[in-house]
Amino acid sequence: MQIPIDDRGLLLGDGLFETVLAERGELVAFEAHAARMVRGCAVLGLPAPAPKEAEATAMAALLAAGLANERAAVRLTWTAGSGGRGLDRPQPLQPRLLAAAAPAPQASEPLRLLTAQVRRNEHSPASRLKTLAYLDNVLARREAREAGADEALMLNTRGEAACAAAANLFWIKEDRLYTPALVCGVLDGVMRAAVLGTAAALGVETAEVRAGPKALAEAEAFFLTNSLMGVRRVGALDARPTPGHRLIDRLAGALA
Amino acid sequence: MQIPIDDRGLLLGDGLFETVLAERGELVAFEAHAARMVRGCAVLGLPAPAPKEAEATAMAALLAAGLANERAAVRLTWTAGSGGRGLDRPQPLQPRLLAAAAPAPQASEPLRLLTAQVRRNEHSPASRLKTLAYLDNVLARREAREAGADEALMLNTRGEAACAAAANLFWIKEDRLYTPALVCGVLDGVMRAAVLGTAAALGVETAEVRAGPKALAEAEAFFLTNSLMGVRRVGALDARPTPGHRLIDRLAGALA
Repeated sequence: MQIPIDDRGLLLGDGLFETVLAERGELVAFEAHAARMVRGCAVLGLPAPAPKEAEATAMAALLAAGLANERAAVRLTWTAGSGGRGLDRPQPLQPRLLAAAAPAPQASEPLRLLTAQVRRNEHSPASRLKTLAYLDNVLARREAREAGADEALMLNTRGEAACAAAANLFWIKEDRLYTPALVCGVLDGVMRAAVLGTAAALGVETAEVRAGPKALAEAEAFFLTNSLMGVRRVGALDARPTPGHRLIDRLAGALA
Repeated sequence: MQIPIDDRGLLLGDGLFETVLAERGELVAFEAHAARMVRGCAVLGLPAPAPKEAEATAMAALLAAGLANERAAVRLTWTAGSGGRGLDRPQPLQPRLLAAAAPAPQASEPLRLLTAQVRRNEHSPASRLKTLAYLDNVLARREAREAGADEALMLNTRGEAACAAAANLFWIKEDRLYTPALVCGVLDGVMRAAVLGTAAALGVETAEVRAGPKALAEAEAFFLTNSLMGVRRVGALDARPTPGHRLIDRLAGALA
């Protein structure tokens, strides 16, 4: 499948995406993903896709890839469409909806996390959205890989913890569950919301916080979340090995 | 012309671009543009295009658009190429070189500049490059347009002046020329460098500075620069009308 080279998603990163887990032909939490894309469009000033059309497009990509019986990742991409030269959007916009599916093998080893030099820009609404302008995340992940780690912890410009390059961050202290507040420049993750909801249902105290180096240093255990990997323990943060915790296992079990 | 939908430029903003002015079939300052793209590739960890191939591709786009005798903008796009799912780049990368040309009418009215809420992230190397992840610039421009202005002034996360959404910023005070330093999260503009060089050659004192609101409030006159518009006077910054200045006319004349 191809798109014209005047697409604003390609030229400027003007658009959004979602990565949806598909299991045995079912798009997991699709409504939450579609709703987030609609909210993101409102922030960016883009028309939003019709959730039913987005679902049909995602499902068609899953079937076309022959992955209806596998564990798969379906990526939905919504671009601002073809446009003239320059930054100003043409009127009317004719956004473009794309989808592709790929196998999503399950893994469970603890992840090695490295704090990246590239910071998240909490002064842009894009920091809370899955936009096509994801280069900072690519660069942060690259830093992590080059240092032998699996994933990058991204701080915001104030030095507060935000999230990983492709996941949200949680930690545990004294049986309480913490995660950076969205205002810190945090992707509003579908699995992040599910974890907060599940923890509350299990009677676990949760807090969305501004957290600097001291809060991270005092944390007892860390985990990452996203729609593909669910809940995944962090085995090391920078040079520091970090242990498991029964609350991580409990949350992973409740969300599996 | 089309590209595959698994291109990392489209999916993640993983790539760079250049906008080159073409006049009567000549690509103006092409070597400086190609050199900047090569430097940007080194920062992002991408293989760089061969300048000769980039030039041939740009020229072919100019001819294909029937603009060899016009004033035109040629956009060169260099993407990280097709890639697997996720943030990690495939090895080896097979980057993709694209070009398109469009008419570039000349304009000279003073520009109305609005300070945008969206900030530039000086904590990312991408803030100094023309990357495909240009959504913050799109959002800043959109803010400016919605307020009836022509262009956005982008501050960095510390509140210092950085640059416009698609241009560099200069100001004059007591016959000295000032522009934000690159460390402020400033695009390393080809025309910015030309203006600094020309000013020095004319015996004008220049300074690349960190400038907060006070420095801007005390400036006598402002102008913007990029490869397409050259030197262009700012007629208003937010609610404040700003005058012309003979140094602006002198620089514009010397660079025309």
